[in-house]
Amino acid sequence: MSVMTEPESGAAAAPAGTPPLEPTYEGDFVLPGDLTLECGRVLVKPTLHYAVYGRLNAVRDNAVLVCHALTGSALVGSWWPEVFAPGAVLSIEHDFVICINMLGSCYGSTGPGSVNPATGQTYGPDFPLISIRDNVRAQAELLDSLGIRRLRLVLGGSIGGMQALEWAIHDPERVRRALIIAVAPLSAMGLALNHLQRQAIQNDPGWKGGNYLPHRQPRRGLALARQIGMLSYKSAPLFEERFARNPNRNGENPWEAEIGDCGLVGGRFDIAGYLDHQGNRFIDRFDANSYLAILRTMDTWDPLRGAATPEEVFGRIRAQLSFVGISSDWLFTADAVREFAATIRTAGVQADYREMISDHGHDAFLAEQVELVRLLQ
Amino acid sequence: MSVMTEPESGAAAAPAGTPPLEPTYEGDFVLPGDLTLECGRVLVKPTLHYAVYGRLNAVRDNAVLVCHALTGSALVGSWWPEVFAPGAVLSIEHDFVICINMLGSCYGSTGPGSVNPATGQTYGPDFPLISIRDNVRAQAELLDSLGIRRLRLVLGGSIGGMQALEWAIHDPERVRRALIIAVAPLSAMGLALNHLQRQAIQNDPGWKGGNYLPHRQPRRGLALARQIGMLSYKSAPLFEERFARNPNRNGENPWEAEIGDCGLVGGRFDIAGYLDHQGNRFIDRFDANSYLAILRTMDTWDPLRGAATPEEVFGRIRAQLSFVGISSDWLFTADAVREFAATIRTAGVQADYREMISDHGHDAFLAEQVELVRLLQ
Repeated sequence: MSVMTEPESGAAAAPAGTPPLEPTYEGDFVLPGDLTLECGRVLVKPTLHYAVYGRLNAVRDNAVLVCHALTGSALVGSWWPEVFAPGAVLSIEHDFVICINMLGSCYGSTGPGSVNPATGQTYGPDFPLISIRDNVRAQAELLDSLGIRRLRLVLGGSIGGMQALEWAIHDPERVRRALIIAVAPLSAMGLALNHLQRQAIQNDPGWKGGNYLPHRQPRRGLALARQIGMLSYKSAPLFEERFARNPNRNGENPWEAEIGDCGLVGGRFDIAGYLDHQGNRFIDRFDANSYLAILRTMDTWDPLRGAATPEEVFGRIRAQLSFVGISSDWLFTADAVREFAATIRTAGVQADYREMISDHGHDAFLAEQVELVRLLQ
Repeated sequence: MSVMTEPESGAAAAPAGTPPLEPTYEGDFVLPGDLTLECGRVLVKPTLHYAVYGRLNAVRDNAVLVCHALTGSALVGSWWPEVFAPGAVLSIEHDFVICINMLGSCYGSTGPGSVNPATGQTYGPDFPLISIRDNVRAQAELLDSLGIRRLRLVLGGSIGGMQALEWAIHDPERVRRALIIAVAPLSAMGLALNHLQRQAIQNDPGWKGGNYLPHRQPRRGLALARQIGMLSYKSAPLFEERFARNPNRNGENPWEAEIGDCGLVGGRFDIAGYLDHQGNRFIDRFDANSYLAILRTMDTWDPLRGAATPEEVFGRIRAQLSFVGISSDWLFTADAVREFAATIRTAGVQADYREMISDHGHDAFLAEQVELVRLLQ
């Protein structure tokens, strides 16, 4: 197994002053067999890239699984360091923390940029639809290989929370507790936002139907997709507080009628400069086809799909669940998370709900880690 | 003056069952001189396309000016018919209603698709930044030519409301009442949404820096821009109620792993089918450069810019102002409209505020006209 270094820690930079935590081990696990996906297609011996922190104890009851957010990586110690702070949620002294890169990602696990062993070619746009359940089933094989029969906790925010809940449904005997942050099945508005992000990428002629060369990304389309996403990860009050109607801090003047390559745009407002910067940072760290793949994984997660009653699905759960909503989140609203938890309780499952009061929007679980930890204590 | 027929009524179709009202007259007014713009550039003898409904009475005190929304037209009787219903806000029997297409639009007034008399070429991307105040000053010349010295009412929603307030500031002696619906200076989130819409257009290679041929629009980019806009004109609750997580009503299956030109997309959800439809309708009725121009007009409106106090700007107002916020509007939130009205009151201006309770979001003033009329009565 090769040790791979991530180009960036994940969806959010660590808060200033908090040193990233080095993993005890980082490497690849190749599934011994093929993975038959929910969509009916087969991933031939897929790879999972993962990182671990701390040591598995002798009785093997200290394992914790962290599931990362959309464009995060296995290096949870880099993107969620405050959660490991003394007395916080996780402890490298007492816990054995595993974080596994999602299938479809470009941070080490099998994704659109990987070679399909069946064809000898990279998957590209032929990469199949991976469900949240597919991820959980693949992750279970890795946990088996590590000798982990019980998880004291599985946790994650956003698409990570989808995986945490799916773990509790799919493998009820293994999961003692699940912490599900800022997530519910995606709403119509969420589906709309993802649809627009896909179009931004696919409208870029550089996308070439998904058959671009690795270093010839559809950069403008991917940057725009990220910017659309950023609107939904942040909140209007945060933008107002930080940017208001200020001209871009580099001195551009929005009231100046400059004509150039950028046509009618003229000078930007500060919020536009910020979004452009976020888009440009993203294209250097993430792959367009991976982004498309994971958005689709997110879109299609709906544990109640095809079920007659919530009991039929959630009644299996043995874990104690905790949900966290974020007051200013408009991608997964606090109301939606609270109602989702309530639906699960109707199936007789222990599921408490807490709300994080924050102006940071959906990203608060990454951007305000100290406050998250305080809420969870 | 030639009579021009509009390709479509405006931003919203008339409610079912309400017949559009035919204008008494529809035509063009060419300003007798040049218009020096706030940005410093000059529009040589610009044209205003306008429509009138009813007759100016002998004492000339029954004139009403309606200002249309972003992609609306001068044909207010087509896009706002319920506002003319018996006993409603306007009356073709008693009022003389004027609606003037905004500069920059593609519905008859001078815009990027017009020929610049100074060069003999269409303006294209060289079309200057037009401010809300520039529009008001041009409109004042048209009113002068019609012999209208007093407006019993000026009203509009969204960018139309920006014009209505600017009228009350710029020409205080002419305006008796102003009704300003669902608007305040654009917030950071609003500026962000407009920035993304511009990028969607400008990323389309068909935009060609703004130098596309009239019938070779950047269609995909313009459609995506419209879809981004639609998110902000509607609301999450409306989307949830109408589309939820349903598969597209044409039978597509979002869980099907189809690969094709559309790459990883597979089947769409219903909300995606709706947004695609809205985007495709729009590109047949609106021009990309016009869209860019009017977004910029909207971005840059800020009556308090450069003022030491609100009194300095709003203290001039002699009109009685009424503001309307919409409960589910997230482009111009009800809070923002209410606070804006309160700021104006601090300058000693009469400015009341009413709130429209609706799930329709920003578009409610067009989509729920009967409810709007009820609120205003």
